[in-house]
Amino acid sequence: MSDGSFGQRLAAAVAARESQIVLGLDPDPVRLWPHAGSAAISDDATAAIFDGLEAAQLAPGPEVAVATRAAAAVLAHCRALIDAAGSACVAVKPQLACFERLGAMGWLALQATCAHARSAGLLVLLDGKRGDVPVTAAAYAQSLLVGTPSPWGHLAALRGDAVTVNPLIGRDALDPLISAARLCAAGVFVLVRTSNPGAADVMDSPMANRRPLWEGLAEMVQDLGRTGTDVREPSDVGAVTGATAAKHLGRMRELMPHAPFLLPGVGAQGGRVQDLAPAFAGGRAFALVTASRSIAQAHEQNGGDPPYAARAEAERMRKLAWSLADG
Amino acid sequence: MSDGSFGQRLAAAVAARESQIVLGLDPDPVRLWPHAGSAAISDDATAAIFDGLEAAQLAPGPEVAVATRAAAAVLAHCRALIDAAGSACVAVKPQLACFERLGAMGWLALQATCAHARSAGLLVLLDGKRGDVPVTAAAYAQSLLVGTPSPWGHLAALRGDAVTVNPLIGRDALDPLISAARLCAAGVFVLVRTSNPGAADVMDSPMANRRPLWEGLAEMVQDLGRTGTDVREPSDVGAVTGATAAKHLGRMRELMPHAPFLLPGVGAQGGRVQDLAPAFAGGRAFALVTASRSIAQAHEQNGGDPPYAARAEAERMRKLAWSLADG
Repeated sequence: MSDGSFGQRLAAAVAARESQIVLGLDPDPVRLWPHAGSAAISDDATAAIFDGLEAAQLAPGPEVAVATRAAAAVLAHCRALIDAAGSACVAVKPQLACFERLGAMGWLALQATCAHARSAGLLVLLDGKRGDVPVTAAAYAQSLLVGTPSPWGHLAALRGDAVTVNPLIGRDALDPLISAARLCAAGVFVLVRTSNPGAADVMDSPMANRRPLWEGLAEMVQDLGRTGTDVREPSDVGAVTGATAAKHLGRMRELMPHAPFLLPGVGAQGGRVQDLAPAFAGGRAFALVTASRSIAQAHEQNGGDPPYAARAEAERMRKLAWSLADG
Repeated sequence: MSDGSFGQRLAAAVAARESQIVLGLDPDPVRLWPHAGSAAISDDATAAIFDGLEAAQLAPGPEVAVATRAAAAVLAHCRALIDAAGSACVAVKPQLACFERLGAMGWLALQATCAHARSAGLLVLLDGKRGDVPVTAAAYAQSLLVGTPSPWGHLAALRGDAVTVNPLIGRDALDPLISAARLCAAGVFVLVRTSNPGAADVMDSPMANRRPLWEGLAEMVQDLGRTGTDVREPSDVGAVTGATAAKHLGRMRELMPHAPFLLPGVGAQGGRVQDLAPAFAGGRAFALVTASRSIAQAHEQNGGDPPYAARAEAERMRKLAWSLADG
């Protein structure tokens, strides 16, 4: 589907946009930007959807009208956020849970949001943290990356440029997603150490070798990744490493010299961009800083209208992160 | 939403149906039962869906016609499977990945499949193995269990009677799902030790205390669960414990005396029902045996038409499991 490796594509995008910032898209129907819900959706439109689905025997309940309006508003919000802050970013990271909770119409809003981000020149990192046994991991790979064959024709995937995955179930459960990602020059970011307080419960557990579990996960990431011919490019298997665990970043970089890091937890969760320098050892494309609420809700902290405040906060983060590493 | 606790509801359902078998629903568009794809879906119906969605600015691509036909066939397959084998089962377990890969139309097929299972008297165990930081876990809880408030009205959830979750991210990431489940007398099944060969990579890793990681996960499950007033009822936090790791079941039961076990891996993955007796210590409702391909594709092994072969295999498993435990 795409030329080159994920690492090449990532490095090229970071260089072209002069940004390592990932715009998190976690839309909550009760916290959308003003005007996002103002698109007038006629009763005729929702009735047509309902009738069509009923004729197709996919029988939605009458709640499809509510879901359609909510999904259209979520899409309008995400588009506005991308239009406002996208120019300071290299990628978007839609949080799948936030779209799934709107049901089928939420899935359409997710597809349209991804399309809008792509048309704005942004990479799309699908954040679903999927993890399942191999046969099911292959189904997730179809859903997120490569699409699904059927007797009626090919079913389109969400076509992520990268996906987040959960490694608990083991390597054979990651393989189908990594293989599928390679087919389309996409990447896989494996959870290594997340940004929530409870991350200590399992990921920090001391192992028989006296090291925390996350170090073993980091070694798995390093093993699984492939780099292209240029060692200055990041590999195609990265690590999700919470920005709130900044004290571990140096050790993580030592264990995963080639992996791109996806760093959530800046802003609302307490992480600070200026503490992330060790992640950028290797080069500017070796770490991506994600921010969701701190950009989308910047107006609540800083005043101004939401698009202006979002753009200013994304640009502030972009400059700060860019200053931390050499190209 | 429902009376009683999950344990009460589970025990009552197992007793009423005299079954501990969970019918896995993992539909693959290229392996559906014959006739599942024969529902004639008119071009008018798909055109109406397309036009309605376009008017709602949810702009699907032209592939919505393919997805609609595939989703209708998947739904017809799942309905036929439930009609054939459901009478020998206590629950269905839709694999979310298999529906998600059909996009928005797959989500509608999932909703309709859940409704059909409920109307057949079956519990619905949503198998998505979700796991994310607390704010996102709450969004998954809305999607799967309790629904989502919005300015346009309440958005319906899939309303699972139970969900599967991944514990890697820690307790605070499980809390929102467990709390939401308690609100609707639903249960949560936590991955402890899965049925794939790669499960050994992380879940069997030796900890500093010389025990495998899964023992620590088992203790977390035991801590998190609540039982009702009757200690003969299972708790509301269960464990996914692969039937292929049958040698561990006695130890698991020791560590989790009150947890219901969800046992995948029988049949296609090599587990045998007759090896599962230790899981049923506590009573018949303390373990559920899941089977997907071994029921849906029983005709490939045993001959006969698919519904007949599926019903016979489900009934064979039901009798075998029922004989392993006292009430």
